[in-house]
Amino acid sequence: MGKTFLLAPDSFKESMTAKEVCEAMEIGIKRAVPDATCIHVPMADGGEGTVQSLVDATGGVFVQKEVMGPLGMPVLAQYGILGDGKTGVIEMASASGIHHVTKATKNPLITTTFGTGELIRDCIERGITSIILGIGGSATNDGGTGMAAALGYRFLDRSGNQLPLGGGFLDDLHTIEMSGVLPELKQISILVASDVTNPLCGERGASVVFGPQKGATPEMVQVLDRNLKHYSKVVKEQLGIDMADVPGAGAAGGLGGGLLAFTNAVMKKGVEIVIEYTHLHEKLQGADYCFTGEGGIDFQTKFGKTPYGVAQAAKSVDSSMKVIALAGYIGKDVEALYDEGFDAIFGIVPGAAEIETLLANGKENVARTAESIARLLK
Amino acid sequence: MGKTFLLAPDSFKESMTAKEVCEAMEIGIKRAVPDATCIHVPMADGGEGTVQSLVDATGGVFVQKEVMGPLGMPVLAQYGILGDGKTGVIEMASASGIHHVTKATKNPLITTTFGTGELIRDCIERGITSIILGIGGSATNDGGTGMAAALGYRFLDRSGNQLPLGGGFLDDLHTIEMSGVLPELKQISILVASDVTNPLCGERGASVVFGPQKGATPEMVQVLDRNLKHYSKVVKEQLGIDMADVPGAGAAGGLGGGLLAFTNAVMKKGVEIVIEYTHLHEKLQGADYCFTGEGGIDFQTKFGKTPYGVAQAAKSVDSSMKVIALAGYIGKDVEALYDEGFDAIFGIVPGAAEIETLLANGKENVARTAESIARLLK
Repeated sequence: MGKTFLLAPDSFKESMTAKEVCEAMEIGIKRAVPDATCIHVPMADGGEGTVQSLVDATGGVFVQKEVMGPLGMPVLAQYGILGDGKTGVIEMASASGIHHVTKATKNPLITTTFGTGELIRDCIERGITSIILGIGGSATNDGGTGMAAALGYRFLDRSGNQLPLGGGFLDDLHTIEMSGVLPELKQISILVASDVTNPLCGERGASVVFGPQKGATPEMVQVLDRNLKHYSKVVKEQLGIDMADVPGAGAAGGLGGGLLAFTNAVMKKGVEIVIEYTHLHEKLQGADYCFTGEGGIDFQTKFGKTPYGVAQAAKSVDSSMKVIALAGYIGKDVEALYDEGFDAIFGIVPGAAEIETLLANGKENVARTAESIARLLK
Repeated sequence: MGKTFLLAPDSFKESMTAKEVCEAMEIGIKRAVPDATCIHVPMADGGEGTVQSLVDATGGVFVQKEVMGPLGMPVLAQYGILGDGKTGVIEMASASGIHHVTKATKNPLITTTFGTGELIRDCIERGITSIILGIGGSATNDGGTGMAAALGYRFLDRSGNQLPLGGGFLDDLHTIEMSGVLPELKQISILVASDVTNPLCGERGASVVFGPQKGATPEMVQVLDRNLKHYSKVVKEQLGIDMADVPGAGAAGGLGGGLLAFTNAVMKKGVEIVIEYTHLHEKLQGADYCFTGEGGIDFQTKFGKTPYGVAQAAKSVDSSMKVIALAGYIGKDVEALYDEGFDAIFGIVPGAAEIETLLANGKENVARTAESIARLLK
């Protein structure tokens, strides 16, 4: 009887979506083992590609919507609705990501998560009841106040005027006004995909650790950190929620904290959420082999990257199931992964080559490598 | 009980000798299978690296000797004596190879195989009784007359004067004088490693096919071809040997023909000779897996390259033995090799990289890849 190969790769960034990796793996495996059964479970870790993979894995759809970008100008964002029709999946970066700003325009004093809030609102208006929200790649440092504003929260100064958008103005925050909040927001559960455990403020906080890569000067970092401290104090006083020291509150410029304060949010590692929503454990039942992979694999893969989560899942279902990872780039000390559920790790690169060529030839390189692996396994 | 891995790679040119490849493979395999037995059989195909591999495979020694280079100036050449103490192994290129001439100095009218003859003579003087002679990479087009001259043959013009060295003067050949030939030459058997089947002259002959890459202009090609025709006519008349149409006589600028005419030479495919002298079949007995490899592998590998010969040998010993090839570069249509005894072919390259980096990191890349393969096999 034909063997069953469970294919659960992440995307190979700039080369293939996770679904395309699955397809290329199947082509190679079928060349070696024509009667193989291949189960495709395109994966992600909550970062870039999560919407694509979860839509692909569940037979969902994409929704495009023009929302406010991080600098106030409109951007065309995209989110997904899973095959169950009631779960939305959003990458905050699609609306409020760092790729929407340039070196010249990046300025975490004014960048806002408002567009991310608009996407959440759009989900609500479509009758979505739960949302998976990946919050990597943000351009913002506003504590999630923009997101909350889009959902009806009003952030007012001492005179009752609404504050401008952006983390640079939160020092003037005096009152959080909730009368206009979307009533349905209470019913929505938000699963926040984040591997970041930083607190909102202080030395390990959002502004100090992530501010500089969003364009913050040392002076701006000080302002932003002080403002988030003030903001969390106001939130604690007026909403009774103490987010200051919650691990992950500092993710995405404090959007993590804002989600915890203003929505029914639970934080979880991205890959765990994806594993749950793709029913990976269930699909692993009865599989003979598990293939995974990612554009790059190195010893850091064990800190929550997709192939690590997949390897752990496979071994938990069947400790003797071979887990094989493919990668476009194999980095330092990859051998450390052999203690973490990986049986073998193969590069797909056929020889000395420019990165552009490799990105273009990803599918054929995955297929060729998968074929040889399957020939060894048969 | 531990599994036995037979390791029979060619060298990875400019990166590792075949022996070094064996060592790197063993490092990786032992990391995966600590009780594995690894049998090293460094291989070659009669081309560059053959002396190194056969010396390494048999526990032989190297001999260095200053001889005449292809242009008449001395060069320091090297050959090997196998572990049996009575078999010499010579690469003609070491004395008379194309790497000894430059773009400016390459001139097949005057280049000579004299130095190769000197190496044969040196073997004879050391009591060697059989010689393996790899004849790839020549700079010459002299029909092997230089080689013969070094062993005592004299090539004379109509007036009894010795001809200058080089294929450009053979039109004046009138008499081949043999009184000074080394008497021991008769007792020496020479196994010529050559995959070339071209005849000495004509459209598929040495001058037309290989002359241009040795620096021959179209006019020179005509002269050289005509001269070799005349030369073979004289050889036929005076020695009774008709080498004109013998397949392989055109190898190495006609050195193939000269060896057949002037020595006890037999031609054979390089890899077959190496397989014979390394006792590969014998060593494959009882092996569980066969690893091979080469710097580059593509569909052409099946035309007599080392990994092809190794794969065929392994399958002939045990048709179910898995044959796994590693390569620094995987070329076009490599899948064609799966019908030729190869079970799997893996690239060792970890990602986008310059060729220099890859050449420098060959050992670690072989070890890493071998480790993953061995982990799949165990």
